[in-house]
Amino acid sequence: MVLATDTQKKLAENWFKDLRNQICAAFEDLENSQISGPNSNVPPGKFELSKTKRDGGSGGGGLMSILRGGRIFEKVGVNISTVHGTLNPMMQKSMATRKNMVGIEENPIFWASGISLVAHMNSPKMPAVHMNTRMFWTPVASWFGGGTDLNPMIEVPEETAFFHDILKAGCDKHDLKYYPKFKKWADEYFMIKHWGETRGVGGVFFDDLNSGSWINDFNFTKEIGNAFMDAFIPLCEKNLNQEWTDADREIQLIKRGRYAEFNLVYDRGTHFGLQSGHDPSAVLMSLPPIAKWP
Amino acid sequence: MVLATDTQKKLAENWFKDLRNQICAAFEDLENSQISGPNSNVPPGKFELSKTKRDGGSGGGGLMSILRGGRIFEKVGVNISTVHGTLNPMMQKSMATRKNMVGIEENPIFWASGISLVAHMNSPKMPAVHMNTRMFWTPVASWFGGGTDLNPMIEVPEETAFFHDILKAGCDKHDLKYYPKFKKWADEYFMIKHWGETRGVGGVFFDDLNSGSWINDFNFTKEIGNAFMDAFIPLCEKNLNQEWTDADREIQLIKRGRYAEFNLVYDRGTHFGLQSGHDPSAVLMSLPPIAKWP
Repeated sequence: MVLATDTQKKLAENWFKDLRNQICAAFEDLENSQISGPNSNVPPGKFELSKTKRDGGSGGGGLMSILRGGRIFEKVGVNISTVHGTLNPMMQKSMATRKNMVGIEENPIFWASGISLVAHMNSPKMPAVHMNTRMFWTPVASWFGGGTDLNPMIEVPEETAFFHDILKAGCDKHDLKYYPKFKKWADEYFMIKHWGETRGVGGVFFDDLNSGSWINDFNFTKEIGNAFMDAFIPLCEKNLNQEWTDADREIQLIKRGRYAEFNLVYDRGTHFGLQSGHDPSAVLMSLPPIAKWP
Repeated sequence: MVLATDTQKKLAENWFKDLRNQICAAFEDLENSQISGPNSNVPPGKFELSKTKRDGGSGGGGLMSILRGGRIFEKVGVNISTVHGTLNPMMQKSMATRKNMVGIEENPIFWASGISLVAHMNSPKMPAVHMNTRMFWTPVASWFGGGTDLNPMIEVPEETAFFHDILKAGCDKHDLKYYPKFKKWADEYFMIKHWGETRGVGGVFFDDLNSGSWINDFNFTKEIGNAFMDAFIPLCEKNLNQEWTDADREIQLIKRGRYAEFNLVYDRGTHFGLQSGHDPSAVLMSLPPIAKWP
């Protein structure tokens, strides 16, 4: 069965909305946990919602959901957006060099829909995390892309292994080549080149995914969203009652500085967002609530 | 009188060292001021010095001086460096398109010496500031560049005017066209494009300065260093005993987040430093000690 493009777009957009709703509900549930430690008296956080616009609205837009100053989450943003428009000359040029994008300059329009999430936790004993997936469409090619990576402030090897195991199990349901390929891609992508270190402990990263079966690629993209929840939420629950010291917090704030460096210097999604006229407050919701460069 | 290139290089390098010594001495003097307010019991800060290396030392290096956690300065870095090597292909390509750089690809070596300073103050009532000047030499052209800009956390129009007046007076001694030209350049350069706002209240910015008289250009570059001190230090002294509120501090931390965005997304010096293999801790000393993206 081959679906019409409009049907594909609608299914993808609806999935990203569904996933957003599931994640926001799960995170608000986490906020309602009974915890001990410094934040036990903080009221459970709630997401605040605001609409975002590309090019003032004429290029589509989305919904930004941010929970700030919660009991568990110091700042977590979940953006969904569906945008469309004309690729700028720089993007056209960069795409035209790809084998499957020949001719894009003749009708350089695009449509994209996706979800993007970054969570910065109160506790230095809980890892920060990023997840995003998207469908990108142009008249000459369409594809899925995305990934998720774990950013512990103080690494716990068994937690890193747990996160990767869940991702591997999800990938393996679709193609045994996916996990090794997309793990390696994440290790390369999330490199802070000037420090010669990765921003976290990796995960998976994929782009330009078009296997020839839209439905298979869509199902894999959904899998990554589901695997993210299965991999991340238990790591929060495990550490709900962990104590931390001022020294742990200092490590966290410095690590967050490096996170901001990666996003502002290297991250493609950030650059695409800032250059393509998307709402900068939505693009930059990934930045940490507070960070240090001592 | 035309000076030999080696003499020019030596004079420039020595000036940047002199200026560094003058500035560090003046800043340590400021730290010894009697002040009221929250930091009156903090011991006066002292610069800590460390050597920096380009390409592990084979490409030259410099001296990084950082004063942290002082009475006046929360973090101020003053870097000097003298580096040399081969321009990378991207830099060659970008330079080869300039009128005066034809042929650079045949012998793409460079030598550069300069000073770079960024000060982040404890008090939200004192402006942050940046200054840098440098001499850049290649076999086909050499030039001076640099500038200084003021970054008040809460703007005081008379302080902005004072800063600009001192810079104008310095520029006017050399060429009446310099101040309007270099002020405009600063307004354009220090724009945080994605927010459509400047990172501060401007100053002067110049690059590719080669008037045909090396000595005139060198004297102008020295003037900018001196004018910076005459313009900035009085603004610190004026505000030594100003009180501030938690709300002022919050404004400061958010403003510093924007400052970090500018440096990491747009600043040429930062990109040049990170790409050319200079010590990342020296390149990134400009980043604020603590910043917020709430």
